[in-house]
Amino acid sequence: MNFSKRVLNMQESPIRKLIPYSDEAKQKGKKVYHLNIGQPDLKTPEAFFDAIKDKTEKNDIVSYSHSAGLMELREAFSDYYKKWNIPLEKEEIIITTGGSEAIIFALGSVADPGDEIIVIEPFYANYRGFSEMLNLKLVPVRATPETGYAVPNKEMFENVITKNTKAIIFSNPSNPTGAVYTKEEISIINEIAKEHDLYIISDEVYKEFTFDGKKHISIMNFDDYDKYIIVDSISKRYSACGARIGVFATKNKKLYSQAMKFAQSRLCSPLIAQYGTIGLLKNVNDKYMEDMINEYTQRRDIVYEELSKIEGAVFKKPHGSFYVSVELPIDDSEKFIKWMLKDFDIDGETVMVAPLDGFYNTEGAGKKEIRIAYVLEKEKLKKACYILKEGVNEYNKIYVK
Amino acid sequence: MNFSKRVLNMQESPIRKLIPYSDEAKQKGKKVYHLNIGQPDLKTPEAFFDAIKDKTEKNDIVSYSHSAGLMELREAFSDYYKKWNIPLEKEEIIITTGGSEAIIFALGSVADPGDEIIVIEPFYANYRGFSEMLNLKLVPVRATPETGYAVPNKEMFENVITKNTKAIIFSNPSNPTGAVYTKEEISIINEIAKEHDLYIISDEVYKEFTFDGKKHISIMNFDDYDKYIIVDSISKRYSACGARIGVFATKNKKLYSQAMKFAQSRLCSPLIAQYGTIGLLKNVNDKYMEDMINEYTQRRDIVYEELSKIEGAVFKKPHGSFYVSVELPIDDSEKFIKWMLKDFDIDGETVMVAPLDGFYNTEGAGKKEIRIAYVLEKEKLKKACYILKEGVNEYNKIYVK
Repeated sequence: MNFSKRVLNMQESPIRKLIPYSDEAKQKGKKVYHLNIGQPDLKTPEAFFDAIKDKTEKNDIVSYSHSAGLMELREAFSDYYKKWNIPLEKEEIIITTGGSEAIIFALGSVADPGDEIIVIEPFYANYRGFSEMLNLKLVPVRATPETGYAVPNKEMFENVITKNTKAIIFSNPSNPTGAVYTKEEISIINEIAKEHDLYIISDEVYKEFTFDGKKHISIMNFDDYDKYIIVDSISKRYSACGARIGVFATKNKKLYSQAMKFAQSRLCSPLIAQYGTIGLLKNVNDKYMEDMINEYTQRRDIVYEELSKIEGAVFKKPHGSFYVSVELPIDDSEKFIKWMLKDFDIDGETVMVAPLDGFYNTEGAGKKEIRIAYVLEKEKLKKACYILKEGVNEYNKIYVK
Repeated sequence: MNFSKRVLNMQESPIRKLIPYSDEAKQKGKKVYHLNIGQPDLKTPEAFFDAIKDKTEKNDIVSYSHSAGLMELREAFSDYYKKWNIPLEKEEIIITTGGSEAIIFALGSVADPGDEIIVIEPFYANYRGFSEMLNLKLVPVRATPETGYAVPNKEMFENVITKNTKAIIFSNPSNPTGAVYTKEEISIINEIAKEHDLYIISDEVYKEFTFDGKKHISIMNFDDYDKYIIVDSISKRYSACGARIGVFATKNKKLYSQAMKFAQSRLCSPLIAQYGTIGLLKNVNDKYMEDMINEYTQRRDIVYEELSKIEGAVFKKPHGSFYVSVELPIDDSEKFIKWMLKDFDIDGETVMVAPLDGFYNTEGAGKKEIRIAYVLEKEKLKKACYILKEGVNEYNKIYVK
């Protein structure tokens, strides 16, 4: 069989590849707490469904929208960004099919096969999939658990820049680490990009998810450098992952028209979900978001408290997104996760987390680290973390003498 | 500014690039009949909206679906295909975001940068966009208006095959020509592919749209060669272009798991539209499809009759899709279309069609050809075709002496 090298090079999702093990555990009657995937358990606001009902009653043809998205939706996003002091106009926004497509448009518009994209690792694992699809090389600059996965220093970026480097990509707040970058940290990225004429692809899908008084700082809050690209998505903030509505945005008009070629070739983003998103942006009140952040803060506290009880675990209190990455005192996280599913339980219950090595591009990195998505209600989460802690102890009795 | 070569190489949509001219015409008070874009004017069946209402009442989280799509939807598609004697099982189907994404998955799974894909030209213009995105070379084999754009002979395919050729792609029934390929014609493609170990990417989105007793023949109705890929979409058959639901299907299990890597990296197709599509596949009756085909047959007849009145027009009666391509007795179709929008009208009304050169990859080809999408109701269509005919006469009085 002949398949493309690009697809052969693509790895299986680190979030999904161990699913067969959890399926098997469930078949054997075990209850599995899923902390491996970023699927929130919160209800999608009624405003989403209401807007769909309302708009489809008036429009009986599910037709193509403009390739950049419905004007009403782009206007609603522009209003939303302005509340965040992000000066994006409707003609600077392309509605995409999830944040995923926005990343593809961004990478595809600025880089050719063999070109290099610098990424702060550990990183959102699908950056790699999209890079393989477009034959780009992801060049990692490494953040570490000891620093709370802070942005690496300037020198580390400079060390990996070549004539083929085209852009720096990162998510802030970070998936998978939960880090929220400070103004100083983002300045490092900004300076490097400007000095070397690189694009900055700033993935801001967890913008709302900050705790402890920390506030998200957008790359658009910096100066007017013309190589900023925003990647955004409604998936997490409105618990609407399946809607597949995202945003590619840039104030660079020439770049915008290049990216529009990708948008035109795939015609448009899903119309019904665009309707729903208009409802979300216009009608979901601040209280909804406050309650949600409050809920996630409490969950974060639980995870932090429970993880702190694991002797030898290396991590700092994360201030954003709904993930925490942690180095466990174990030999191999994938082996550990499989063991948890296969050979460990407390009263018939066990836990699934994601191995972090799949979020690194550096060979062998992240081998002892895991990612926890705290997307379960507090009681369940507390129990799941307890099981994890007990699992680590038990595992080490067997494998580390 | 540095943009990627891939995006710079992408052309503007031939369907959309002349829109500024029609906008200007409308601003000046002209009425423009749009025969340039394949957006049907028919209502989307209620079954689509009903299923969405029903499913969203029960599911209050718009969550990710399986990356291959909802199992219920894949089962519904499998049932649908079996009615067409296309033996596709649910585990051989990936639900994609429109036919567009299915094409990307197909091309991306089988070809690397620099590899060649043979295409029967004129072809669906976005094949080129997706090829540029993936750095593939589209190699045309040319069909002509004199033959009704029939599949070229075997020798013409053989002449362009190189060691870099990976696949043959075509749409049947054809967008933009309206040709419906016979068993003998598809056999040519099939033989060539088998002799040279090439994939066949068969775009069958207009399957239902055949007239005059012709029936669509799927590549899957041939033998069990393991390099068949089906591209499908609900956009046209249910007048649901904005839903963005398509299908990538193959009986080749290894290929399927490779394509699933693309599917996993973008997480899933739009959930709400997946719900609606379950409703369409399960609840739209045969009568709906019969009425629709009846309607399009009558429209085709009108277009055929009116075009036949244009002296020197070269075309054959098309038997499928809802397009017809025709060579007009003019010097340059793009120039003609602009002139129609700018300088011609009958009682304040004019017509917009698509220039066919954008559907060719051969330099200079299609310069006198246009594509008509007969997506207007009969009276309007008749008037539009009359205006077109008068326009050709008037244009030739000015430009061809």
